[in-house]
Amino acid sequence: MTVQISRESLIGKSLTRVDALEKVTGRAVYGDDIKMTGLLYGKILRSPKAHAKIKRIDVSKALALEGVKAVVTGKDAPFRGGEALRDQPFLAIDKVRFVGEPVAAVAAVDERIAEEAIKLIEVEYEDLPAVFDVMDALKPDAPIIHEELHTYEHIPIVQPVPGTNICAKFEFERGDLEKGFAEADVVIEDTFTFAPSHHGQIEPFMAIAQVDYNGRITVWVPNDAPSRLRKDLSDAMKIPQDRIRVISPPYMGGGFGGKGGLKVEMVCIALAMKTECRPVKIRLTREETFEATLTRHGAVCWVKMGAKKDGRIVACHSKLYYNTGAYAEKGPTVTLHGCESGVGPYDIPNIKVEGYCVYTNRPVAGALRGYGLPQSSWAHESLVDMLAHKLGLDPLEIRLKNALVEGSINPIRGDELFSVGLKECLEKAAKAIDWYKKRPPNRGVGIACEYKATKTPSGSTAFVRIEQDGSVEVVTSSVEIGQGVRTILTQIVAEELGASPNMIKVTVPDTDYTPFDASTTASRTTFHMGNAVREAARDAKKQLLELASKLYGISPERLDTWDGKVFPKEGGKEMSFREVITSHYRAGLSILGRGSYYPNIPGTLFSAHSVFYMYAAHAVEIEVDPETGVITILKYAAAHDVGRAINPKACEGQIEGGVLQGIGSTLYEEILFDDKGVMLNPNFRDYKMPTSMDMPKVIPIIVEAPHKEGPFGAKGIGEITLVPVSPAIANALFNAIGVRIKDLPLTAEKVYFAIKKQKGGN
Amino acid sequence: MTVQISRESLIGKSLTRVDALEKVTGRAVYGDDIKMTGLLYGKILRSPKAHAKIKRIDVSKALALEGVKAVVTGKDAPFRGGEALRDQPFLAIDKVRFVGEPVAAVAAVDERIAEEAIKLIEVEYEDLPAVFDVMDALKPDAPIIHEELHTYEHIPIVQPVPGTNICAKFEFERGDLEKGFAEADVVIEDTFTFAPSHHGQIEPFMAIAQVDYNGRITVWVPNDAPSRLRKDLSDAMKIPQDRIRVISPPYMGGGFGGKGGLKVEMVCIALAMKTECRPVKIRLTREETFEATLTRHGAVCWVKMGAKKDGRIVACHSKLYYNTGAYAEKGPTVTLHGCESGVGPYDIPNIKVEGYCVYTNRPVAGALRGYGLPQSSWAHESLVDMLAHKLGLDPLEIRLKNALVEGSINPIRGDELFSVGLKECLEKAAKAIDWYKKRPPNRGVGIACEYKATKTPSGSTAFVRIEQDGSVEVVTSSVEIGQGVRTILTQIVAEELGASPNMIKVTVPDTDYTPFDASTTASRTTFHMGNAVREAARDAKKQLLELASKLYGISPERLDTWDGKVFPKEGGKEMSFREVITSHYRAGLSILGRGSYYPNIPGTLFSAHSVFYMYAAHAVEIEVDPETGVITILKYAAAHDVGRAINPKACEGQIEGGVLQGIGSTLYEEILFDDKGVMLNPNFRDYKMPTSMDMPKVIPIIVEAPHKEGPFGAKGIGEITLVPVSPAIANALFNAIGVRIKDLPLTAEKVYFAIKKQKGGN
Repeated sequence: MTVQISRESLIGKSLTRVDALEKVTGRAVYGDDIKMTGLLYGKILRSPKAHAKIKRIDVSKALALEGVKAVVTGKDAPFRGGEALRDQPFLAIDKVRFVGEPVAAVAAVDERIAEEAIKLIEVEYEDLPAVFDVMDALKPDAPIIHEELHTYEHIPIVQPVPGTNICAKFEFERGDLEKGFAEADVVIEDTFTFAPSHHGQIEPFMAIAQVDYNGRITVWVPNDAPSRLRKDLSDAMKIPQDRIRVISPPYMGGGFGGKGGLKVEMVCIALAMKTECRPVKIRLTREETFEATLTRHGAVCWVKMGAKKDGRIVACHSKLYYNTGAYAEKGPTVTLHGCESGVGPYDIPNIKVEGYCVYTNRPVAGALRGYGLPQSSWAHESLVDMLAHKLGLDPLEIRLKNALVEGSINPIRGDELFSVGLKECLEKAAKAIDWYKKRPPNRGVGIACEYKATKTPSGSTAFVRIEQDGSVEVVTSSVEIGQGVRTILTQIVAEELGASPNMIKVTVPDTDYTPFDASTTASRTTFHMGNAVREAARDAKKQLLELASKLYGISPERLDTWDGKVFPKEGGKEMSFREVITSHYRAGLSILGRGSYYPNIPGTLFSAHSVFYMYAAHAVEIEVDPETGVITILKYAAAHDVGRAINPKACEGQIEGGVLQGIGSTLYEEILFDDKGVMLNPNFRDYKMPTSMDMPKVIPIIVEAPHKEGPFGAKGIGEITLVPVSPAIANALFNAIGVRIKDLPLTAEKVYFAIKKQKGGN
Repeated sequence: MTVQISRESLIGKSLTRVDALEKVTGRAVYGDDIKMTGLLYGKILRSPKAHAKIKRIDVSKALALEGVKAVVTGKDAPFRGGEALRDQPFLAIDKVRFVGEPVAAVAAVDERIAEEAIKLIEVEYEDLPAVFDVMDALKPDAPIIHEELHTYEHIPIVQPVPGTNICAKFEFERGDLEKGFAEADVVIEDTFTFAPSHHGQIEPFMAIAQVDYNGRITVWVPNDAPSRLRKDLSDAMKIPQDRIRVISPPYMGGGFGGKGGLKVEMVCIALAMKTECRPVKIRLTREETFEATLTRHGAVCWVKMGAKKDGRIVACHSKLYYNTGAYAEKGPTVTLHGCESGVGPYDIPNIKVEGYCVYTNRPVAGALRGYGLPQSSWAHESLVDMLAHKLGLDPLEIRLKNALVEGSINPIRGDELFSVGLKECLEKAAKAIDWYKKRPPNRGVGIACEYKATKTPSGSTAFVRIEQDGSVEVVTSSVEIGQGVRTILTQIVAEELGASPNMIKVTVPDTDYTPFDASTTASRTTFHMGNAVREAARDAKKQLLELASKLYGISPERLDTWDGKVFPKEGGKEMSFREVITSHYRAGLSILGRGSYYPNIPGTLFSAHSVFYMYAAHAVEIEVDPETGVITILKYAAAHDVGRAINPKACEGQIEGGVLQGIGSTLYEEILFDDKGVMLNPNFRDYKMPTSMDMPKVIPIIVEAPHKEGPFGAKGIGEITLVPVSPAIANALFNAIGVRIKDLPLTAEKVYFAIKKQKGGN
């Protein structure tokens, strides 16, 4: 007799999202939905000045207002934060460096009183000269924004330049640049600018902090890295990590890099330290979220390339200037990652990339999906197109000729690449839009490609419990930001453990209970946490089969599991997980599995080789209205090498969302400021983000170059999805009407005037 | 060079309770302190009848009241609960069986409206004859309380007798009883009664339930067994366990057995199923807690003993009748455990014990510290004293002559005993009160002893995480009921892992995160969960030493840990846990340990041999005021064999608390009813519990007969501490004034009349 086990792999199946119903019915609980007894409401007084000394702060009137429970200033939280460089006070100390910087905060019994109270705080400023432009900030006579740069703690790879506004500087060289350019048949160079933009998460920022009588701190916050937040708070306050508990709300309303690091948490804590155990909540308005959380770095990127007549690129030199605003935040590592793509996903023998992370008096810039690559990629992928044009080559052909392949050496990090699906991405994306087809006037096609590293090394840990009734709990600190992590981890555990997906539940992070995870960023979760939960599932399965082995009287190796049942491989009676467990433990017990993943790669964070690389190529067909300058996207093909798609529909969702987000900063989005550094469009009326109505026809293409260490071959996908969008569209614009625009966004106005200029010859 | 590691064991040290400060400052959060948004308040309509058919329920007026959000009756929760016998509806179905039984419930926007609404519910009853006395309920013509007893599900060891009020019946025999009595030189018998009493937890019962849109249930409740509660709910509702989450409040205001099982949880859930995701809270009043949660079984115990002239007891026959009230609840297993001590901690060759768990129309009786032993022990320890008197032997000597010793066979279960400190307890307790000293008139001494099993088999599981900063999280479902479990587990993990206690944090149970534990009952936690966390700590330590081994370049076996540091055993540099972890995982990782404990003992729950036994002997000196009958305790010595005291002060606290609780039911406490079954004293004004002012001089004595399988030799202590109190005091009363009272409590009134009767010869 043989058993009939319908063992179809769950990997590669488009399981419906486990949280779909809860989200579409509006029942999902977000941070602002959390209420608690005795809750106080905090409001932050913000600097109206871009750069000024604080001469005096008088909070006495605010404190005297009825209903006010606490007022804090920089003296109450004399700590600085900063992942790479510890430069940022949570409330301004001595001076302010951007319009919107927190200066003081109030906790009161309701938001209205808190709002009233902050207006009663008197602050006397002494203006200092401000600098906003990244290139101006580099001039020798520029106002210095951080006079004490030399005193800040920083991670080794980040080297600030005291006495300047250079917060961090990076340089990568390979081969012989001069020789490379000398050998080239054609050399071109150009400068491209990337406008500052915003994450535009639907959920504005919020946090609740409570400090118990003995100083233990609990923070409820939609942060993309609960374990890291706990460590950052512990480092900032110099208290042990076990004095802090970070709880994620069940859902997060979008992150895109903007929900990481320390934002209002520390201000909440400073207030909560004065409220005798009453919790304090701060929720930012949309305006505050724009002005005072994070932006994406505006950047100026200069690239020079030299190539042989046949299109072989032999030299590339890039200088990338990232405007990081008033504080470093993740700026240094954003710049570093931007540098990594400073020459593109090409095998170029002679390169030099210089990256500058530059302080200005703009709001703080930090991580935003793509982490520095949208800027550098915008530049080099535009220039590659210009090079192709100059050489009379097809833009697809020049990319295929230079593209990284299996065994190529990473031009920046020097590691030998494997699992490289770049050429397949290029070919499939081009094919999907019928690349070589002849187009009518004002229509054009563009292509761009990129690769992206993940955060390396970084660790993930997880528990998997099989309960006595056979249900399975996956205990992890991975955050459901909307990307579908609960679904992916459910699939991985179901597959590895042989459980049915509907038996599995994935927990919400709570650092008291859920074990360490570096972060839910950098497209790292499927790979890292996927490996961790897989190991934990394997550990649990091993124990389960050992129990079953005693029941069957055969060795565990001769047993296997599927769909919540154990069965002998050679056939025989099935037993449910429940039966196996309760046969041994009638009085009840769970099986506990533990797993962790930490890549075995030498080097420290941001200096190591990447444990995996994602590859992507986007090809787009557009039509330009020469009368208005409006660009209409007719067809958008995005091909992504994800290693292995655990859930193809989830990958497609990532691609579609990323492409639309990329379209936003390509065609519409730009944060605008007045000459005093005041943000002019900090809201969704004036800051133009695409909506679902702007969604073009997107063709998501999944390419699978399996990774030897990824769970079932998977790598990542989330971040790179928006990177090629800007150059792909700009290249199509040039292809359509011969206009090359080098400054994002490609607004209709800009296109209109470029056409006019082209026609007028001026 | 050799290292100086001050490695003094933490086991046996009276560490200050980790929660001491939080409790004494009043900052500890209890269930009723939990607030949440949208919270509704539930109230329960209770039966005014002891036994009646429900002819009609009309809830329409209650539903129509403004502010009422849901009304439920038995039809809305057509489930029955019951650990041993599934007989109890959560809301009455068709009939009511005691005054106070839940009939309907309302959820409203505030408690006042809910209270008003339940008054609007119309219920028509048809009276049925009621029976309250346990012996009356056994008569052939007694009203039958459960006509459908034959249809109820039950665990195998519990055998109800359909057609009677016998909910469960047990019989244990060993040797030849008739022959034993025939051989005896002296045979005596008598009947003793034990009054129903109450736990008197300071915190009344409460629960909050919330049902999310897809039916997943969360319950916040101070229950002594979150994992079991989850299973009980799952079993009752026939839904998988992963559809239910049980969260413990951080603190519980006393349990003593009264916070287990299913009380208002199911009613909360039934309401919450109708409130569209709004949470529903029910908090019982003090009166409801008395009338409608649990009581301790009143009991009638008949014992007959035969002994040789030298005091050797050769035969014992007991018949124990436990009044379990209207529903079984834990009554069957309470009776079973009572039976186990039906002949006392003595090596008697010929025995028979009969135990009857009997339904009446009283409120439900269930677990209360001691679990059936206070009743049976009251009887046999009184009778042993009477036997000694009849034989002209000293009550201590007769006990020492018959006491169980190492290698004795458990008279009921038949297992060979080890780790038996009973004689040492007897000797030390007697010595502590100067047993043989001649006392002045009206003074006397009494002694009593007992042994108690724990719940076997039962399982515990736990995780121990070493965080990257060296702090340690112990993830466990053990409940801090006030017994000090967090402190004990901290000590065990600190010792096993070589961590400093102040680096360790023990979590609060939450079934989504904390792994399975059978229950925090039966004095099982130090032993079972102690073993589980110890294994988890060992697992974590092993991994830590493997990491350290690579750093030191020597095998893990040559390394050890202490006080949060790793060191080579032969001497050398110490490294903190933090250094070891971050040397390997610079980007951060935790070490995960897992542990579980399930005793390797054949048999099922309640039928297996006990994995350990606790032993105790109490000796007391009292003075009786012959004018008033008031008993004054002059000195009370309580000796307890705990295997190994992990924290001696915690053991002493248990002893002191238990003795005072025992004094309560010995001298003061008795639940009184009128002839309709209405409780007359359901509050702390009329129900007389001892307060701290009634605390006599107690001498706690710790005896250590280490257990081979216990963590560091530990067994348990909590439950047995009150068991010997009643007979010890009654025996001292007889010793003081020659009066033998066989019905508890020994109120001054009862003593006064007994003295009067003795004097008057009537």
